[in-house]
Amino acid sequence: MTIYDISLPISPSLPVWEGDPKIILEEFLSMDAGADANVSRFAAGVHVGTHVDAPHHFLNDGRTVETLSLDILMGTAFVLHLDDDVNLVTAEVLDAAPIPPATLRLLLRTSNSRQWTLDSPEFQRDFVAISADGAEWLVEHGIRLVGVDYLSVAPFDAPIPTHQILLRAGVIIIEGCDLHHIPQGKYALYCLPLKLIGAEGAPARAVLVG
Amino acid sequence: MTIYDISLPISPSLPVWEGDPKIILEEFLSMDAGADANVSRFAAGVHVGTHVDAPHHFLNDGRTVETLSLDILMGTAFVLHLDDDVNLVTAEVLDAAPIPPATLRLLLRTSNSRQWTLDSPEFQRDFVAISADGAEWLVEHGIRLVGVDYLSVAPFDAPIPTHQILLRAGVIIIEGCDLHHIPQGKYALYCLPLKLIGAEGAPARAVLVG
Repeated sequence: MTIYDISLPISPSLPVWEGDPKIILEEFLSMDAGADANVSRFAAGVHVGTHVDAPHHFLNDGRTVETLSLDILMGTAFVLHLDDDVNLVTAEVLDAAPIPPATLRLLLRTSNSRQWTLDSPEFQRDFVAISADGAEWLVEHGIRLVGVDYLSVAPFDAPIPTHQILLRAGVIIIEGCDLHHIPQGKYALYCLPLKLIGAEGAPARAVLVG
Repeated sequence: MTIYDISLPISPSLPVWEGDPKIILEEFLSMDAGADANVSRFAAGVHVGTHVDAPHHFLNDGRTVETLSLDILMGTAFVLHLDDDVNLVTAEVLDAAPIPPATLRLLLRTSNSRQWTLDSPEFQRDFVAISADGAEWLVEHGIRLVGVDYLSVAPFDAPIPTHQILLRAGVIIIEGCDLHHIPQGKYALYCLPLKLIGAEGAPARAVLVG
């Protein structure tokens, strides 16, 4: 069994969503300056790096991230490779894809993942995302968790429909997965977001075992 | 199989280590104020809530948290109950404890865990911790990961020896586990810290399955 880390490296050089707070990761206490221990301080928007979205993010309904089911965040997942010519994940694309029956957790590897092999990626607006009819397809096919390899599940210019369709159905969304090194197939997923109380999302560490 | 969440709830009311940055978890964008989505902002020291320590925390040796082995952070762990009259986890205490042979990951439930059942816990200086000879016992007995149920593995007045002994041996330390609801026994541990680059620790979500 191999453990694959699909989490983005969190540092001030990681791109964040346009308009979101910058990532701060800085020295707070330093042994070089005479302290007993090194201690760092971290600050960011909660939708930073690899992270999960809870319904409150786009539904304003009070269903915040600490309520998400660990039963869904851990379990068998299928990593689907989509060709480089797919620039929107529509119902038609999903219909044609070799997703095994009874898949509950689906991670989509697209050309986005190539971003995470760059030394200094910059924020992209033209990433591959899921269309509204793609989101409806996922809900209708019983998907309980969907992961994508860029910082949003929805197109830059149309954030609301895809998020609302998935979140209204209780689908857990993982954004910012680095899947560039993951072969297509089944894995055990462990996605553990910070237990932030009352927040509409949280950064997570996510790994695949397979 | 039951999933037990042993992570502390992160909010501004969670106690932090004396002198560490306060926890900030606040609204950044709000749908009530007309935004498309709710977005929160988070700031804290990295040793907040349930978290792991990397060697750089007390050794200043550059071995930071993203280098910790996921192979150790996930796997079979033994939760040991210690009686309420144990106020320091010494070699003698560990010698007398029913720790199964070949245990690699050990979580210690002490009277500390009662703190996490309180509505408004406040920072305590007189928590149960591991003595220097207790730390040596753990290293000598092949423990690769140790978890404790308060915010430090070491006594308040003697933070350096216990940390240095464990970290020098490459033992991964998890601090701030809430074990009040966990029966003694074996579990599968999944402790996934944020992938903070170059930091000497990171907040984590930690769960037991068993």
